[in-house]
Amino acid sequence: MADEVILLDFWPSMFGMRTKIALAEKGVEYEYKETDPWVKTPLLIEMNPIHKKIPVLIHKGKPICESLIQLEYIDEVWSDAYPILPSDPYQKAQARFWADFIDKKFYDPSWKVWGTKGEAQVAAKKELLEHFKTLETELGDKPYYGGEIFGFVDIALMGFYSWFKTMEKFGEFSIESEFPKLIQWTKRKKFGAE
Amino acid sequence: MADEVILLDFWPSMFGMRTKIALAEKGVEYEYKETDPWVKTPLLIEMNPIHKKIPVLIHKGKPICESLIQLEYIDEVWSDAYPILPSDPYQKAQARFWADFIDKKFYDPSWKVWGTKGEAQVAAKKELLEHFKTLETELGDKPYYGGEIFGFVDIALMGFYSWFKTMEKFGEFSIESEFPKLIQWTKRKKFGAE
Repeated sequence: MADEVILLDFWPSMFGMRTKIALAEKGVEYEYKETDPWVKTPLLIEMNPIHKKIPVLIHKGKPICESLIQLEYIDEVWSDAYPILPSDPYQKAQARFWADFIDKKFYDPSWKVWGTKGEAQVAAKKELLEHFKTLETELGDKPYYGGEIFGFVDIALMGFYSWFKTMEKFGEFSIESEFPKLIQWTKRKKFGAE
Repeated sequence: MADEVILLDFWPSMFGMRTKIALAEKGVEYEYKETDPWVKTPLLIEMNPIHKKIPVLIHKGKPICESLIQLEYIDEVWSDAYPILPSDPYQKAQARFWADFIDKKFYDPSWKVWGTKGEAQVAAKKELLEHFKTLETELGDKPYYGGEIFGFVDIALMGFYSWFKTMEKFGEFSIESEFPKLIQWTKRKKFGAE
C-alpha cells in the first residue's frame, strides 16, 4: 500500500470515522482492516496492547492509538495537504478544547440515550440536549467549527453524525427542530466533491 | 506582568501542577491567582464557562483550559526554550498517548483510593496498582518518559507526585517497594537546579 498505511477500524465507530475522514481529506491511501473490537484479535492486541481498542492507525509498521491523536499525527505527517488544525497556537488550543469536550462530555450521554433505560436514560437525554445546545452555540453562525475550514472539531463531531438518528429515535427528540444550525452544519460539507 | 500571563490554579491540583512545571521549565513569569474550584468566582466562570475548573492559563487576556492543552500551548508559544514535546510526529503521538492514558486511566482510581471506602476502594487500589505497573513498564530503564528529556509525559505524571503519599497511606501499599523505578524517576529531576 502507498506509504504503508493500515487502519484497524470497526464500521459503526464514531472514533474510527474521524480517522477515515482525516485520511480522505488528506488524500492518503490506506488498507482498511475491519476489526470487531469485541474480538481481541492478535493484531489488535499487538498494536494497541494498553486499550485493545479501535481505531488503530498503523504507519510504516508503527501504531498510533486514540482517534484525536491520530488526527494530530495525520495533520503533522501529511502537512502539505488540507490543514486539519489551525497554525495559530491559540486557535489550535481552542480546537483541541472543543474536540476534548466532545470526548469528555458529549460521548457518554450520547450512547446512554440508546444504551440505557429508565432514569439513567432520562438523565442522559437531559445532559445530551444541554451539550447539543453548547455545541450549537459554539458553532454560531460560522459555516464550520474551524471557521471557513472543515477542521479538527468538525471531524471530531462529524464522527457522531451517523448516530444522530439513533439518538433521536431512542431519546424521542428532533435534532433538526431543536438545533437547526447543527443539522445545516452536517449538510454543508460535501465529502468527495472536491 | 511579563507577557501578561496569569494562572488560575488551586494549590493541591495535580493538573495545575503540570502547568506550573511547564511554565517554570520555559522560564515564563506569570501572576498566580489562587482559585478554589469549589467557589465559582466570576473570573473562573468568565475564563472557563464550559467546565468552570482550574487550571486556567490566561495569556494576553485569552483563556486556555485543560492542563494538557495548556502544555501544548506553552510549548508552541515559548518554542525557543526547553522543548516539552518531541518534534518527531510519531514520538509526539506516543507522548500524547501516555499523557492521555494518565488522564483516562490513572486519575480515576488514584483519587478513589483515598476518596472512597469498602469495595470501591479495594477495586480502585487493584486498578491503581495495575496502572502503576503499566507506567513503570513504559518508563523501563529510560531516565525520563521523554527519554533523556523530562518532557510531556513526565510533566503529566509528575503532577500526581505530591499525591503519592496520600495514595500509599489510604491504599496501604508502598510505591517505593513495588515500583522502585518510578520512585527513582521522581527523584531524578532537580527542579530549579538548572
